[in-house]
Parts: sequence; structure tokens; C-alpha cells
Amino acid sequence: MTTIQDQTTIITNQANLAAFDLSSYLAQIQPQVEAALDNSLPVVYPEKIYEAMRYSLLAGGKRLRPILCLATCEMLGGTTAMAMPTACALEMVHTMSLIHDDLPAMDNDDYRRGKLTNHKVYGEDIAILAGDGLLAYSFEYIAKATQGVPAEQVLQVIAQLSHAVGATGLVGGQVVDLECEGKSDTSVETLTYIHTHKTGALLESCVVCGAILASASAEVLQKLSRYAQNIGLAFQIVDDILDITATQEELGKTAGKDLQAQKATYPSIWGLDQSRRQAQKLVDEAKAELASFGEKGRPLMAIADFITSRTH
Amino acid sequence: MTTIQDQTTIITNQANLAAFDLSSYLAQIQPQVEAALDNSLPVVYPEKIYEAMRYSLLAGGKRLRPILCLATCEMLGGTTAMAMPTACALEMVHTMSLIHDDLPAMDNDDYRRGKLTNHKVYGEDIAILAGDGLLAYSFEYIAKATQGVPAEQVLQVIAQLSHAVGATGLVGGQVVDLECEGKSDTSVETLTYIHTHKTGALLESCVVCGAILASASAEVLQKLSRYAQNIGLAFQIVDDILDITATQEELGKTAGKDLQAQKATYPSIWGLDQSRRQAQKLVDEAKAELASFGEKGRPLMAIADFITSRTH
Repeated sequence: MTTIQDQTTIITNQANLAAFDLSSYLAQIQPQVEAALDNSLPVVYPEKIYEAMRYSLLAGGKRLRPILCLATCEMLGGTTAMAMPTACALEMVHTMSLIHDDLPAMDNDDYRRGKLTNHKVYGEDIAILAGDGLLAYSFEYIAKATQGVPAEQVLQVIAQLSHAVGATGLVGGQVVDLECEGKSDTSVETLTYIHTHKTGALLESCVVCGAILASASAEVLQKLSRYAQNIGLAFQIVDDILDITATQEELGKTAGKDLQAQKATYPSIWGLDQSRRQAQKLVDEAKAELASFGEKGRPLMAIADFITSRTH
Repeated sequence: MTTIQDQTTIITNQANLAAFDLSSYLAQIQPQVEAALDNSLPVVYPEKIYEAMRYSLLAGGKRLRPILCLATCEMLGGTTAMAMPTACALEMVHTMSLIHDDLPAMDNDDYRRGKLTNHKVYGEDIAILAGDGLLAYSFEYIAKATQGVPAEQVLQVIAQLSHAVGATGLVGGQVVDLECEGKSDTSVETLTYIHTHKTGALLESCVVCGAILASASAEVLQKLSRYAQNIGLAFQIVDDILDITATQEELGKTAGKDLQAQKATYPSIWGLDQSRRQAQKLVDEAKAELASFGEKGRPLMAIADFITSRTH
């Protein structure tokens, strides 16, 4: 039973939540991330590889992954400075996966974020090496640039991130995705495996790494894992929906690509309406995990909402 | 001036060194490394990627890198158990670099260690992902499987290894190597840059990581870095010589490849004789760095000698 005081708290919280301005929050934090990314990787000899790495790393994008990491760390009492190297590393890993996914032997994409893909500019050989370089550097950067965090926790962050990238995560998801290409009978379970690994694992890692850096308890880590798993899957469902409903200009990449490749997607299995409902349900569940953090959870709440409302 | 006691010590050391049986040492340590590598990476869903990773990781080879790591750690009073996860990780990273180097967009090799290359068996897409998976897993494995070593040192190992793999090491060396392909006017300086980065950085990392795990002082780390840099370069010069003088059967890979690709090599710049002399000089200098370790340095001394005497 809810007491009057509880109800007042709930109403106050909702008012606060409604008042939270995600645009202002992002406008304040995105330039910090851009600057940190720019500083993280200076160009030295042999210039070509650094330029190729920077071409994709600094190609814009929402910077959702670094921001999730920073917002989680701050929510739990940590500082931006403490989490920034890991936040940059998460974007490096994400960029590596995009560069390699775009290769002719993989998804064979010419455009990404409205720009030519890495291999179209630098050649396949350099694109492969730029991905390798970013992946290796992400771990070096966490290990060397993180300050004010005990080594034990930095090591946990590295273990967590590498698990999210390898065959247990992103790479595993991509393998199953490739296996399912051109198959129209992919089950929802397989599709969910693909996305919880190909996209979800890294998004979860952003939140969990931010929490580890802020010395979160096991209980808090679990709540935040569930939050991240839910928004990760919602994110992918919305991506599938946008692939059908958005234009190439809005997406900054080839639209209708999934349909052309005869890839199974949530809309192709559930239809658009049920896909939208499912994404909303996942976002609601994600937000429920944040209830105990009160006002401090507002940035992560707003990011969850942003996922279903975005148009590109 | 050398005293009689010094001279006796030197003679005794030389007798001991002569008596050291590298074959027995390798016969004892190689199966331990093979077993550890086999255990490090079990096959789970999605099986195909684990099989592809294991196909190249367990394709034999001398296991020089893990052995260098283990031998260094033991020389300095550490245990095999302490260094084995890092030793396996070093072989994972080396394997990743071979898989990616062999790709059609890179060196386009069909054979490696007498077996079909990874992409010839599993396809280019899986080969790219198998490399990514091994690279990511190498860091996870160090972070999670290393026991009995303070987190601070494990973190140093990760920083050291990632630095040796990225654009500051292996990837950088490979980029300059690609740039020099088909050019007959490559300078010795550029050739040395290529090899100290493409091969040398990882070999150095094997020795330095083994030393870090055994809590080596900065002075010892410097000596061992120089040892490793010297044997790394000697190793590459011998590799270049063998590419000309050995048969395909001995090498287990396409022979005369450098000549065909019009790659600059040490023999093409210096001739075979001077290349052999230079390799021997580097090995002698490497061994001189080990003088202060006395009898305990015998495995690393013997490994240095092995590099110039090997025929494949």
C-alpha cells in the first residue's frame, strides 16, 4: 500500500523527471566527449594509420556509449574525470566494430554516418589494421589514462569490456548474424541472441564499467545490467524499425539495407506495431530498475526514453 | 682487469651454458604451453567462431613467445603458473596478427605453418572476426586468469601488451610494411622500423611482461628490453635469410614470397653474408645483457642462440 508521503514523493519525482532536459545535458556533455576523444589519439608516425583511426573515431555520432558510461559513474558518486578514459575506450571499441562490419567481406557498406566508410577512403588493408589498432589502444588507454581508481577496479573494467567485445559478445553476435543472412526463418530467440551480443553487450558494458569505476555494489551492478540489457534490445528494435521507416538522409547510412539483404528483423517477425510496443515495454522496464536512485537517475531515465523516441 | 676468481667464474659459466640442453628444455615446456592454450579457449556457442580461433591458435609453431615469457618470469624467481595466462595471451595476439596478415586484402597467403590459412578454411568474414575475438580475449584472459600477482602489475602487463600490438607496435609496423611493398628503394632505417614494430615489439613484450609479473626492477626491465629488441631484430634477419635459402617444406609456408613481392629485405640490402654476420652480432649483444643473471639466464641465452641457428 502506498502512503500519502510515498505518493507525494512519486509525484515530485515524476515532476523532476519531466523537467529534466536531455538536450541541454547532451549539449553539455557531448563536446567534453568530443574533446577527450580528439586528445586521446594524437597523430604520429606512421601518420596514415592514426589518420584512418581518427577518421572513424571522430566521425560524429551520438556518443551514446561514452555518455552512458559517464552518466552512470556520476549517478553513483564518481566523477567525469574518473570515467573519461573508459568512456573514450568504449567509443574506440564501437568504432572498431563499425569499421570491420563495413568491410566488403562483412556487410560491405559504402557509407556510415553520412561519410564514406573507412575502407572506401583508406583501403581494406588499412581499415582492418585501423580496427585492430583501435581495439588494442582501447585497453592501453584504460590501463594508462585512468586516474583515481584502484588498479583492481581498472582491471575489472578491462575484463568486462574485453568480454563484451570478443566471441562472448560483439564478435559472437556478428558471427550468428552472418550465419542468418539470407535466411527468412530466423527465430526470435536467435535474433535476440544476435542483438543482445552484437549491440547489447557493449551498451551493457558502458553502464557496468561506469558503475565499477564508481565502486558500485554487486546489487547495483545487477540492476544496472538489467537496465542496460533492456535499453540495448530496445535500441536494436528501434534501429530495425528506423531501417524501414527512415530515409537515408536521416540515417546517414544506406536505408532499407536489412530488407535488401533479406535479414530477419523484429518488424519482419512481429510487424511494426508490435515491435514499437515491445521497445516501449523494454524501456519502461529499464526505467523501473532506476527507481531507487531517485533524482540522480534522471540522465539514465532520459537516455532510455530517448532510445524509443529517436528518429535516426 | 679480470681476477683469477672472475676468470674461473666465467669458465664455469661457459661450461654450464654449453651443457644447457635447449631441446630438453623446450620438450618439457612446449607441451605445458600446448595444454594451457588448449584449455584457455573451450568451444561454446556459436561454435564456428571458437573453432576458427582454435584452428589457428592450436596450429603448432615453436611457441617462442609464450616460452620467452615463462622463461623470463622463472629466471627472475616467478613461477610458470603466474605467467601462463599472459604467455597464452601473447600467443593469442601473435595468432591474431597472423590471421589478419594472411587476409587477401593484406599479404594474401594461402598457407601458414603448413596448413591452409584461416580465411581459406572459414572465409574472410570469420577470419577477420576470429582475429578480433583473439585480440579481445587475450586481455580478458590476462585480467581474469592471472593469479598470485598484484592487480597493479597485471595492469602494467596489459598496458605493455596493448602498446606492443597497436599502432605503436605491430599494427604500425605492418602499415609501413604495406607502404613499402613493391618499392626497391626502402632504406635500412625504414626496414628496421618495420621489423622492430611488426615482430620486435611483441617479442619484447613477451620478455618484459614475464619480468613485470616477477616484479622486476626498472634496471632489470631495461636490460631485458635490450635483450629482446636484439633477438627480435636477429629473428627477422634470419627470417629474411630463410625466405631465400629454405624450401617451402621446411618453412611450412610459401618460400621466396618476399622476392616475388619485390619486398626489401636485409639480404636484398646487405647481401646474405653481411645479414648473417649482423644477426650473430645482435645475438651476441643480446646474450651480453644476460651476464648478470648467471646460470639462471641459461634458457634465455640458449633461445638467443637458437634464433641464429634455426633452419625454419
